[in-house]
Amino acid sequence: MISEKMIKLAQNNSVIRAMFEEGNRLAEQFGRDKVYDFSLGNPNFAAPAAVKSAIIDILNDTEPTEIHGYMSNAGFPAVREVIAKSINKKHGTAFSTGNIIMTVGAAGGLNVALKTLLNPGDEVIALAPYFVEYGNYVNNYDGKLVVVPANPPTFQPSAEALAEAVTQRTKAVIINTPNNPTGVVYTAESLRAIAEVLEAKQKEFGTSIFIISDEPYRELAYGADVPWITKFYRNTIVGYSWSKSLSLPGERIGYLAIPSEVDEFELVFDAASIATRVLGFVNAPSLIQLAVARCLDASTDVAAYDANRALLYDGLTKLGFECVKPDGAFYLWMKAPDGDDKAFSAAAKKYNILIVPGTSFAGPGYVRIAYCVAKETIENSMMGWVSLAAEYGLKG
Amino acid sequence: MISEKMIKLAQNNSVIRAMFEEGNRLAEQFGRDKVYDFSLGNPNFAAPAAVKSAIIDILNDTEPTEIHGYMSNAGFPAVREVIAKSINKKHGTAFSTGNIIMTVGAAGGLNVALKTLLNPGDEVIALAPYFVEYGNYVNNYDGKLVVVPANPPTFQPSAEALAEAVTQRTKAVIINTPNNPTGVVYTAESLRAIAEVLEAKQKEFGTSIFIISDEPYRELAYGADVPWITKFYRNTIVGYSWSKSLSLPGERIGYLAIPSEVDEFELVFDAASIATRVLGFVNAPSLIQLAVARCLDASTDVAAYDANRALLYDGLTKLGFECVKPDGAFYLWMKAPDGDDKAFSAAAKKYNILIVPGTSFAGPGYVRIAYCVAKETIENSMMGWVSLAAEYGLKG
Repeated sequence: MISEKMIKLAQNNSVIRAMFEEGNRLAEQFGRDKVYDFSLGNPNFAAPAAVKSAIIDILNDTEPTEIHGYMSNAGFPAVREVIAKSINKKHGTAFSTGNIIMTVGAAGGLNVALKTLLNPGDEVIALAPYFVEYGNYVNNYDGKLVVVPANPPTFQPSAEALAEAVTQRTKAVIINTPNNPTGVVYTAESLRAIAEVLEAKQKEFGTSIFIISDEPYRELAYGADVPWITKFYRNTIVGYSWSKSLSLPGERIGYLAIPSEVDEFELVFDAASIATRVLGFVNAPSLIQLAVARCLDASTDVAAYDANRALLYDGLTKLGFECVKPDGAFYLWMKAPDGDDKAFSAAAKKYNILIVPGTSFAGPGYVRIAYCVAKETIENSMMGWVSLAAEYGLKG
Repeated sequence: MISEKMIKLAQNNSVIRAMFEEGNRLAEQFGRDKVYDFSLGNPNFAAPAAVKSAIIDILNDTEPTEIHGYMSNAGFPAVREVIAKSINKKHGTAFSTGNIIMTVGAAGGLNVALKTLLNPGDEVIALAPYFVEYGNYVNNYDGKLVVVPANPPTFQPSAEALAEAVTQRTKAVIINTPNNPTGVVYTAESLRAIAEVLEAKQKEFGTSIFIISDEPYRELAYGADVPWITKFYRNTIVGYSWSKSLSLPGERIGYLAIPSEVDEFELVFDAASIATRVLGFVNAPSLIQLAVARCLDASTDVAAYDANRALLYDGLTKLGFECVKPDGAFYLWMKAPDGDDKAFSAAAKKYNILIVPGTSFAGPGYVRIAYCVAKETIENSMMGWVSLAAEYGLKG
């Protein structure tokens, strides 16, 4: 009766829901503080105080019709201008108001970008392991997701595998660095290799191939340089979100940066503005647009994430688990000791530890451990990890 | 190169943009206060003070991680609960938390509903004149918009014309009351007639046909009763927005109410929650969700709109123009004196009056005059209307 696409999604969703319900059941049985939930990328840290002050200042110094009114579908010009300047200052670029579209988070921005670019049957490449929603977003526009595995054990992208996967129908490659679920930051060398492959393929096929760079974790890096991708490749659209950097995931606020150098820039920018409207976003939420513009130099507590990272990485490697040391984001990507990520995740649950099998990210054999949790959650989970290591016969 | 659907939209959009640019050109030439812009449905009235207090209270009495964090894709359960109760109190219904999905405005809600319901080629009926974006929303999901004209001069919907238009492929009928662009409120009699047609057609074809009721203007009625549609027809999804009732159009906040009685309720509700996620909305903006929940009894200044309505309707009918007397919304639907709405709108521009040809709403022969403007704009425009009436040889 209803949309067949949606019926399929509803069926898959019941698996995820079962996991949540299991978590709630454990919390009820043992108490919420005895359940160690590493399954969600929901920041546990509060938004910086600057966000609250900015919102109150805006309510006091700006007319309500301006705060809450319609503006251009691309967002408030003044907001887009300060964002462009902030990017330019950080990355030495030359963006202006006309390169920025405010979006309903990174998820909204990715949908706008894909709606703008895709014709039915167009191929979009994702580098595995990847955020599982990419497949749904591409499917919204009847595109076809093509999965290219990254190189273990570093999980840097493989330019060779990418070259083999690009076809005449490739419209875009989604990259995500710092990466969910691996915590890896792509090096300048990796990005240069990707760019070279795509430049060559554009020439070979006479097509435009876009990199869509999904960057919600840009500011969450622990010393590693996170290269700015538009310097490496011309046909790039950057999607950003303040969900993680300002701990505002519920507010749905981000931007697309579309460089003037992309093929048919004016058409792409216009189409993306219109896509924002016709998909029903209309514009990014107005008060929060104004608020983030006043908080561009604020940041969430990266040091706290870094402390969690050290605690978890050191604790688990000492027990004998094999982990990719994360350079960014707030995920630890760990090998399932016997290669069976689903069985390992199920075993962890016996110790009230909730983690996600890598299979959910097209990365079988590994698990994702989200450490955007209270420090105590990590500390208190350690007894469980010790038992789990023993169960799998690991020697620390 | 990019999406062919989007290329077409970008081409159409340049016409609308030309209109805006013409308005800006006039404002620069004559001064903003000498241009009488009746073209936009952007409320000129400020959000009620309760909104500002609610936001500040929330920032002071709630944890930032709760205010700005992720929640269920359907929205905060506590918010959905008070909304359900508020609907029940007003309309004698029996909604609960599980019937409400918070949306990114009404436009977001309509997209979620259509994504949930449509398979490619499914037909969606709009009752002309209608808000032009409906066609774009239906096209997002490869549906086919079928237009059924309403009955002039009352512009109540025509059950007979509807009956002729329904086919085996009809998946939904979009209704919008109070109506944009006519200002008409559908009577209980009209809704009953629509419901009877659709019940009969569901039986005839063995299908489910949904009414999607787009209700951003529900509270903007000037004494007329706005009947609650779910009492007339079982397979109904109501889409609401606070854009107009609380003057928050930029904030993108609304809800879908899905009654438990619709066919395959659980599947429809689940699919709509998931559609919220996969379309990239993820959830309605969190702080504003909490704010509207505290402002359910607040309202914008309906009396001020009513004063504008009287001023404009009386002024223009005295000059000899033929207008549909609006019972709701903030639009006056007026006959182009010689039937050529485009030429009439162009003629109005000579007097710095900006109005929209009815052709843009599939309502040729009429123009839409949005009176959500300052009272002075109406007063100061009157000299222009007098000249325009004279130019068209009208006798008041």
